[in-house]
Amino acid sequence: MSDADLTADKFREECGVFGVFGHPDAAKLTALGLHALQHRGQEAAGILSYDGEHFHAERRMGLVGDHFSRESVINRLPGKMAIGHNRYSTSGETALRNVQPFFADLSIGGIAVAHNGNLTNATSLRDRLVDKGSIFHSTSDTETIVHLVATSGFTSVNDRIIEALHQVEGAYSLLALTKKKLVGVRDPLGVRPLVLGIYDGCYMLASETCAFDIIGAQFVRDVEPGEMVVINEDGITSLHPFPKQRSRFCVFEYVYFARPDSMVEGFSVTDAREAIGRELAREVPADADVVVPVPDSGVPAALGFAQESGLPFKFGIIRSHYVGRTFIQPTDHTRQAGVRMKHNANRAVLDGKRIVLVDDSIVRGTTSMKIVQMVRDAGAKEVHMRIASPPTKDCCYYGVNTPERKKLLAARHSVDEMAKIIGVDSLGYVSLDGLYRAVGKDGRNNAQPQFCDGCFSGEYPTSLTDISGGDDRRQLSLLSEQYNAAE
Amino acid sequence: MSDADLTADKFREECGVFGVFGHPDAAKLTALGLHALQHRGQEAAGILSYDGEHFHAERRMGLVGDHFSRESVINRLPGKMAIGHNRYSTSGETALRNVQPFFADLSIGGIAVAHNGNLTNATSLRDRLVDKGSIFHSTSDTETIVHLVATSGFTSVNDRIIEALHQVEGAYSLLALTKKKLVGVRDPLGVRPLVLGIYDGCYMLASETCAFDIIGAQFVRDVEPGEMVVINEDGITSLHPFPKQRSRFCVFEYVYFARPDSMVEGFSVTDAREAIGRELAREVPADADVVVPVPDSGVPAALGFAQESGLPFKFGIIRSHYVGRTFIQPTDHTRQAGVRMKHNANRAVLDGKRIVLVDDSIVRGTTSMKIVQMVRDAGAKEVHMRIASPPTKDCCYYGVNTPERKKLLAARHSVDEMAKIIGVDSLGYVSLDGLYRAVGKDGRNNAQPQFCDGCFSGEYPTSLTDISGGDDRRQLSLLSEQYNAAE
Amino acid sequence: MSDADLTADKFREECGVFGVFGHPDAAKLTALGLHALQHRGQEAAGILSYDGEHFHAERRMGLVGDHFSRESVINRLPGKMAIGHNRYSTSGETALRNVQPFFADLSIGGIAVAHNGNLTNATSLRDRLVDKGSIFHSTSDTETIVHLVATSGFTSVNDRIIEALHQVEGAYSLLALTKKKLVGVRDPLGVRPLVLGIYDGCYMLASETCAFDIIGAQFVRDVEPGEMVVINEDGITSLHPFPKQRSRFCVFEYVYFARPDSMVEGFSVTDAREAIGRELAREVPADADVVVPVPDSGVPAALGFAQESGLPFKFGIIRSHYVGRTFIQPTDHTRQAGVRMKHNANRAVLDGKRIVLVDDSIVRGTTSMKIVQMVRDAGAKEVHMRIASPPTKDCCYYGVNTPERKKLLAARHSVDEMAKIIGVDSLGYVSLDGLYRAVGKDGRNNAQPQFCDGCFSGEYPTSLTDISGGDDRRQLSLLSEQYNAAE
Amino acid sequence: MSDADLTADKFREECGVFGVFGHPDAAKLTALGLHALQHRGQEAAGILSYDGEHFHAERRMGLVGDHFSRESVINRLPGKMAIGHNRYSTSGETALRNVQPFFADLSIGGIAVAHNGNLTNATSLRDRLVDKGSIFHSTSDTETIVHLVATSGFTSVNDRIIEALHQVEGAYSLLALTKKKLVGVRDPLGVRPLVLGIYDGCYMLASETCAFDIIGAQFVRDVEPGEMVVINEDGITSLHPFPKQRSRFCVFEYVYFARPDSMVEGFSVTDAREAIGRELAREVPADADVVVPVPDSGVPAALGFAQESGLPFKFGIIRSHYVGRTFIQPTDHTRQAGVRMKHNANRAVLDGKRIVLVDDSIVRGTTSMKIVQMVRDAGAKEVHMRIASPPTKDCCYYGVNTPERKKLLAARHSVDEMAKIIGVDSLGYVSLDGLYRAVGKDGRNNAQPQFCDGCFSGEYPTSLTDISGGDDRRQLSLLSEQYNAAE
Repeated sequence: MSDADLTADKFREECGVFGVFGHPDAAKLTALGLHALQHRGQEAAGILSYDGEHFHAERRMGLVGDHFSRESVINRLPGKMAIGHNRYSTSGETALRNVQPFFADLSIGGIAVAHNGNLTNATSLRDRLVDKGSIFHSTSDTETIVHLVATSGFTSVNDRIIEALHQVEGAYSLLALTKKKLVGVRDPLGVRPLVLGIYDGCYMLASETCAFDIIGAQFVRDVEPGEMVVINEDGITSLHPFPKQRSRFCVFEYVYFARPDSMVEGFSVTDAREAIGRELAREVPADADVVVPVPDSGVPAALGFAQESGLPFKFGIIRSHYVGRTFIQPTDHTRQAGVRMKHNANRAVLDGKRIVLVDDSIVRGTTSMKIVQMVRDAGAKEVHMRIASPPTKDCCYYGVNTPERKKLLAARHSVDEMAKIIGVDSLGYVSLDGLYRAVGKDGRNNAQPQFCDGCFSGEYPTSLTDISGGDDRRQLSLLSEQYNAAE
Repeated sequence: MSDADLTADKFREECGVFGVFGHPDAAKLTALGLHALQHRGQEAAGILSYDGEHFHAERRMGLVGDHFSRESVINRLPGKMAIGHNRYSTSGETALRNVQPFFADLSIGGIAVAHNGNLTNATSLRDRLVDKGSIFHSTSDTETIVHLVATSGFTSVNDRIIEALHQVEGAYSLLALTKKKLVGVRDPLGVRPLVLGIYDGCYMLASETCAFDIIGAQFVRDVEPGEMVVINEDGITSLHPFPKQRSRFCVFEYVYFARPDSMVEGFSVTDAREAIGRELAREVPADADVVVPVPDSGVPAALGFAQESGLPFKFGIIRSHYVGRTFIQPTDHTRQAGVRMKHNANRAVLDGKRIVLVDDSIVRGTTSMKIVQMVRDAGAKEVHMRIASPPTKDCCYYGVNTPERKKLLAARHSVDEMAKIIGVDSLGYVSLDGLYRAVGKDGRNNAQPQFCDGCFSGEYPTSLTDISGGDDRRQLSLLSEQYNAAE
Repeated sequence: MSDADLTADKFREECGVFGVFGHPDAAKLTALGLHALQHRGQEAAGILSYDGEHFHAERRMGLVGDHFSRESVINRLPGKMAIGHNRYSTSGETALRNVQPFFADLSIGGIAVAHNGNLTNATSLRDRLVDKGSIFHSTSDTETIVHLVATSGFTSVNDRIIEALHQVEGAYSLLALTKKKLVGVRDPLGVRPLVLGIYDGCYMLASETCAFDIIGAQFVRDVEPGEMVVINEDGITSLHPFPKQRSRFCVFEYVYFARPDSMVEGFSVTDAREAIGRELAREVPADADVVVPVPDSGVPAALGFAQESGLPFKFGIIRSHYVGRTFIQPTDHTRQAGVRMKHNANRAVLDGKRIVLVDDSIVRGTTSMKIVQMVRDAGAKEVHMRIASPPTKDCCYYGVNTPERKKLLAARHSVDEMAKIIGVDSLGYVSLDGLYRAVGKDGRNNAQPQFCDGCFSGEYPTSLTDISGGDDRRQLSLLSEQYNAAE
Repeated sequence: MSDADLTADKFREECGVFGVFGHPDAAKLTALGLHALQHRGQEAAGILSYDGEHFHAERRMGLVGDHFSRESVINRLPGKMAIGHNRYSTSGETALRNVQPFFADLSIGGIAVAHNGNLTNATSLRDRLVDKGSIFHSTSDTETIVHLVATSGFTSVNDRIIEALHQVEGAYSLLALTKKKLVGVRDPLGVRPLVLGIYDGCYMLASETCAFDIIGAQFVRDVEPGEMVVINEDGITSLHPFPKQRSRFCVFEYVYFARPDSMVEGFSVTDAREAIGRELAREVPADADVVVPVPDSGVPAALGFAQESGLPFKFGIIRSHYVGRTFIQPTDHTRQAGVRMKHNANRAVLDGKRIVLVDDSIVRGTTSMKIVQMVRDAGAKEVHMRIASPPTKDCCYYGVNTPERKKLLAARHSVDEMAKIIGVDSLGYVSLDGLYRAVGKDGRNNAQPQFCDGCFSGEYPTSLTDISGGDDRRQLSLLSEQYNAAE
C-alpha cells in the first residue's frame, strides 16, 4: 500500500473566475478573489487589467499565492478594471499559452475573455474558423469564443459576444473585459455558478461568494441562468439574450466543488452537506461505535450522520498540514507498509471499534481502498463506508475533470461488488432523491430534473457535438495534436 | 482588523530529532521521520549520514519536504546510519551555520550531534571554551556540547559525551552519531520527549511516535529521563550516567506541541486533549447554542467540551488549505474590513447563535481578538471563550520559543481583564489541577510537581545560570553580537 | 566619467536564422548554429522542430547557451527538421510572445516562420488583417507574414508564401518549415545575408558561414537575392518568384555586423576590415607613435592601418573577460574617476605617446568620449581617432537597431565639431568610395549603388510605407500600444 | 577532435586578495577590486566588513559579478573596513565553508583572515591542533592560521599573528582584519604579490595593481617580502618580524598569472611578455609567413615575436565572446569534425601559409594538439609553435593549481618528442635565462635564483613538510576525507 493523496481520486472543478469594475485596487482584489477560489483550479492563474490606456496581463503556472501575492506582479497590473481566472486542466495540455484570460486586439478595440465551463462544440467551431484563416494559439475552448467575437460582423462588443455565444453549446460562466465595460454571462441552463457582489460601491463578479468574504465585499445575488450583466461607468445593466429555459445547476457543486462557507443558489454549502449526511444516516444506517470522516471533504456529512444517528464523531484520520512534494520511498520491498505522508490513522480512536467512515464520493476507488486498509491496520473491528452522493457512473463534459468512464468504479460494478473491492463490511450511498431533498427539493423530477446530474444519471442537458461515442471520450484539442511549445 | 494567522500567536516547540542505525535507507527514513515531526520546527532541517567511509551532511532552510523529498539530495546522503534535526529559531539567529546536526572531526574520529531542548548555562560554558582557543561557528547551544566533547581528555566517545553532559544544565533530548554508533540521551528530568522504535530489525530514535507511524515502524518505548541508549552493530545498550531524579516532563507537549496522533509518555495526545475539553466543560461551563473550535488546535478540546456539555459541535471557522505568502493588501483605508486569507467565518453556523469558542491557549491575545471580532461580524450573539490550558504567565527556557514575559497577556492581566480585552462575553481556563487530571494524575503535587509547568507556574526545575533577571530575557548568543554572515 | 560598455554605442543587427532539413540531430545543429550567430541577436532565441508527427517549439529569453545547450531542452525538440532564430529587439517590445519562430496551425497543416530583416509596410498590412478578424499575438512583423499565409486562398504552401511576400516591402531573409519542407527566401534586393551549406548530406541555411564552421559543415553558396530555395526529401529546388532587380547588400555587414571569420557575399570579413584600415591609413594618415584599437571591433582595421602606415600596433586598452552585471558604484562624489569595469588603459603602452585610436564607427559618441578620456588619463600625448566607416548619419529600417536620427552624432555635426566633442586631436573617417573599394568595387556607383548604405547616405532602396517623417521614427507596433503581458 | 577551451590546460593562480581601511564604501571598493582580480580565482568569492559594532560576511560560489555587483548583497556589508578574497580550488574541495575570508570570535575580539598562497606544513599543524580539541570546519590551510592565532597565548593580535606565521612554511600574501586594524603580510620570500595603494586618503592592499586601476586608486608600492604592514586610524606602520632572506618572487606571474595591465614588482606585465616574445624570436626563430597568437594569453608574446622577426601579425584564431555552458554534441560518429564553440580558425588568414603559432605555455598538451589540428584543417602549410616560457616540468606547491607531475607533457618528453605529439613542424621554448633577461635580470643566478621557478627547475625555496614523494602529490586535506556537506 503506497501513500494516498485523499484528494487525488476526486472529480475536479476546472475553473474559477473573478472580475471587478471601477476600483483602484482592481488587480489586488482580483488576486484575493482568485485565492479564495483556489479550490476551483490549482494549476495556473491569470489576471488582466485595463488602466485607461493599456491592457496588462500576467499569467502564471502554479497557485495564485505563488505569484499574485507579490507587489512586483500586482504593480504590473494597474487600472480600475480587472478579470482573473484559476485553471485546472488535464495533463498534456498544460502550457502558459492556455492560461486565461485570453486577449485579442480587435479593430473595435481590445477584449479579454475568461470562462468557467466547457463548450461541447468547440472543435467543430474551431475547424470552421481555421479554414477561414484564423490562427489559434491555444488548445482552450475559450479561444474559440474569442475568434468568434473577432470575426463577427457586428460593430458593438455586446452584439459580437451575443452572436458568438449563440453559436456555442455547453456550459459557461463567462467574463469579458473591454476598455469600457465588464461583462458577465451565464449559459442558458446556468450549469456553473456566477455571483454578483459589491464592495466600496464597485460591482464584482465571482464563481462563489467566498471570494467576496475574503475582502469583506457584500454578496448581492446570483447572476441568473442565461443572463448577461454589463457593468460600466453608468452602473449595471441586465440583458437576457437567450430564449428562457429551465435551469440545470450542477448538483455536484453542493457535494464537493464549492467551498463549505459559500452560499450557492441561495443555499449554505455546509448546511447542504450536513443535510446529505442526515439523509445518509436515514437511508443507509449502520450499527457502529463511532463516525469518522475522511478528511476534509467528508467532515460535514459525517457530522450530519453523527447528529442523526446519535453516534459519537471522532477524527480517526489525521491529515498532515505539511503536504507538498512526494518523497522518494524506501526501497525496502519486504514489507507492505505504506508511507503515511499526508494522513495518519489515530489508533486511539479506531482500535477495537466499529467505524462508520464517511466520504463525499468514490471515483476510481483506489484511495478508498488505501484508507480502509489504514483504518483496519489501526485496529478497526468493522468498517461501514457511507458516501454523501449517489454512485458516479458517468463523465462530465461541462468543465469538470473526470476520468474516462471505464475507470469509474461505479460504472462497472454494483454497490455490493464495490464494497468487496474496497474492503468494507458495508457500503451505502445516498439516493438521487435524497440528494435532491438535502438541497431543498421534494426529490428529483425525473421528467424535468431540477439540476444537472449527468455524472450520476448519464442524462446531459445539452447536445454533445464534439463528443464521439466510447468510454475513453475526451474533449478534442486540434492544436495539441501537432504542436508542443514550452512558454 | 487585518488578517490573522491562527498559529502566529502560539508557543513554538523549537526542535524535532530523528535517528536510525543499520538500515540501507537511513537517510530516506530520516527524511520521512523529520517530515512527520515538521510541526516541531519549520524553519530549517538537516540530515547527516555515515557510509562506512565518509560522513555526509545536508542542511537547508525551509521545510523538510522542500528539499529532502528529492532524490538528488537524498543521494548525497549514503550510508546505513543517519541522524536528522528540524529547527525553529528566534529571528536574527537564522542562518545555515546554525542548522543541526553539528559535525566535528575529532582526533578520535568524527562525531555529529543534534538535540531538542535548550541549555541554560551554554553562554558561561562557551566563554570558558573561547578563552582556551575554541572557535565557535554558530550561535547554537548544541555547538557548546560539541566543543566540550572535542576538548575532553577522555579517549572513548561515550565518556566524552558523559563528561560533556555533566557540565551542562537545562533540557535536552540529544542524538549523537559516530562511525560506530548512534547515541540517544534524555536529560535527567526528561523535559523533552524521546522515543525508541524498531523497523526492519533496526532501531530508531525520534521525538514523537508519529515519526514511526509514517514509515510503519513499531513503537518500542519512551527513552527514560536520564537514560543514555547506545545503538551499534551489537544491538542496544542502556546506560544511566546521571543520579536518579523525579521526572518533570513538559505538560505543554499534551496541550499543543505534540501531534494529536502521537503517544506521549504512555498517553494518547488526542485523548488528553479531549479530556481537557471535558474538564473545561465541567470547570467553566457556558450557557450557549453551539461549540466552535478555533482550527486546528482547538478541535479535540472542543469535541470534548461538546461531549461533556451536550452542545452541538460545528465548524464555524473554515481554514483555507492554500496558505502561504502574505498578499499585498488593498490600500483602501476607508473600511476596517480585514482580508480573510487564512480562515473565514461560516455565517450559516454562527449567525444569531451563542458560541462557545474553544482554543488551546492565549499568548499575546492578538489573534484571539481578531477571531472573536470575525465571529461577531458573522452574527454571533454571544461569544464564550474557553481555553484548554491554564493562563500562560511565564517564559520557557527549555527549547520552546515564547515571547518576552511582558508580552504575555496573562502575565499582566486578570482573567476578567483579558475577557474585556479580547472582547468575549465570558472567558474560562482549565485549572492546573484539571490539566494534570486530564493526563492521568490525581491533580498537581505542589511539593513535587509531576511535570514541568514553568510557563503556567513560574517554577523551573533547573537552575537558570545564563538567565539574568528582567522581563525581556532571552538566551545569550555571543557570536551574533558581532558577526553576521550569509551562508 | 562613468564606466563604458564598448559595444553599448553601436548599431545592432537584430536577427540571425538557421535551418536544417533531414538530419537526426536537427535541433542540436540548430542550437550550435544559433550560438555561432549569437552576435546577431543576444536577447532571445527560439528553435522549432518537426518529428514527423508533432511540431515542437522552445523559445527563451537570454543567450542561446543559457538554455539550448542543455539536454533537457534539446530533448524536447525531436525530429529531423528544425529552424531557429536569434533576436535582438528594441526595449519595450521584449516578450516571449515576440520570440521567433512563429507557428500557425493552418487548414493545410502547420507552418513555422522566422526571418532576419524588417518589413516597412507591416503596420498597414496588419491593420487590414485585423479588420477581417485576424488576432495578433505579438508585435513582430513576422507574424504579419504568417497571417498573410494563413488567410491566403491558395492551397499549396509555396503559393501561399509567394502571395504573402508579394505584399510585403522591406528586407528579409526568411526561413519557413512545414511538415514536408524547409523553405528559404531572400528579398529581391538581398539586403540581409543568407547562405546555403551541407553537412552529412543534409542541406542547411544560415545567416553567416561561421554557423557552418562551428559544426564542420561545408559552405555551398550564398542564396541569391530574390531566390526561394525549397528543400525537401527530393533535394533542393530553386525558385525565382520576383522580378529581377539589382542587389543592394547591406555594406555595414562588412563594417561591424558579420563575424570576422565569416565569408560574406564571396568576401572574407577580416580581409575587408583590414583593407578598410589600409584605405583609412591612405585617406587620413596620422603623425603618431603607435596604433591602438578600440577592442574588439577596431582590431582588424587597426592592424590594416598599422600595416599601411608602418606604425607599431599595440593593445593600449585591455578588455576584461569578466563582464556582466553592472556593479553599484562608490558614492564618493569628490572624485571624477570612473570605474573601469569592462576595460582598462594600459599605461605602459600609452604614456607619453601619440596614439592613433581605431574604431569601426561612432554612433552617439558617448563611448568614444570616455575612451579618449581614459587614453589621455593614461598619459597619451596626442589622440588621433580613425573610423573604419563613413559617418553614420541616418537610421536603418531593415532589421538593424539604430537610435533615433537626432541622437546620431554625425547627423548633427561636422567632422571637425565631432573631433572637438569627442576630445581628439584629429578625427578621420574612411570615405564611402574607400569603403566600396575595400570590399572589391571600384568605388560607389552613385546612379545605381552596389550596396544598401542608407545609414551613411540616407538613400533607401525600398519605399518606407509605415515610416512617417520626423527624427524620432520607429517601427509602429500596434499591439504594444494597448497590451502588456508577462509570459 | 572535440571542442577546446583554450584556458582549460593552463596552470591556475588560486587566489586574489583585496583590503581597504577607513573608506565609507569599503565593501563596494572591495567588490570592484575583486572583480579586477577575477582572473586569480573564478570559483568563489567572499567579502567581510566591520562597521564598528558587528562583523558582516558574504561568501558565494561563482564570479564576483554574479553576486557582489548587487546592492542587496553590498548593503549587508556595512562599515569602513573590509577584506575580500577570490578563490580557485581543486575539485572535490569546493564548498562554501572553504570560501575565505575566515572569521573567528576570539576572547580578544573577532578576527578575519584571507590569504593568497599555500602552506606546505598545514596538515602537520592541523593534526596537532585537533589533538588539543580545535574543531576545523574547512579543508583550507587558512583555517590552520586562524586556529594558531586563536590558541596563541599572546594578548595582542599582532603578536598572535606573528607567533602563528613563525610556525607556518610556504607562500602567503595574507590579509587580516580586526575591529581596529587591517594587517597585510607577505611571506619572507615574497613568492606571491601584494601591493599597497591609496584612494581618497585611505590605504588599500591588493594582489595586483589592476585592482587599483578599476577604481582610480593610486599605486604606492609593493609590500616587501617578509614585511607586515599594519593600517589603523593612525596610519600605516611597517614591521619586519622575520629574519631577512633573498626574495624569490614567482616568475610565472609574468608569464601568465598577472593581468597584462598590472605592474608587478616594478615591471609592466605587457612589456615583460612582449620582451619574452622578442627573446623567443631571437632564441628559436622560424622561417614562416605570419605570426598567429593562441588567444588571448599568447597575444603579447606573438606581437613581440612579430616585431623582432619582421613577420606580419594576424589573428588566425577567433575567440567567441559567448562562451559558457558546454553544448550537447551531435551524436553523429561518422565524422571526426569537432564542434568549434569557443574559437574558430580564420581560413582567410591561415590557408596556404607557414604559421608561427605563439602560446604562453604547454601543460598537458591536449589543447595544443587541438589548436594545431584546427590550424592545419584551415589550410596552414607549416606550423611552428613557439612557447613564451621554459618547459613546465614540475608542480607548484605555493598556491597554484597544477596537474600531477606525471600529467605534465614536459615532465615525460623531450622537446622533439613533444613536437611530434603536438603535431607541429617545429617547437621552440624560451630558455630560463631568456625568461630572466626579459624581466630585467642578466640571466638566472643558479646559485641564488632571483625568482621562484620551481615549476621549470624543480628547485623549491621552502621545505615541503606535508608533501610526500611521488608523481601524484597533492596537498592533504584531512577533513574532506571523512566529511561532505552541502552548504
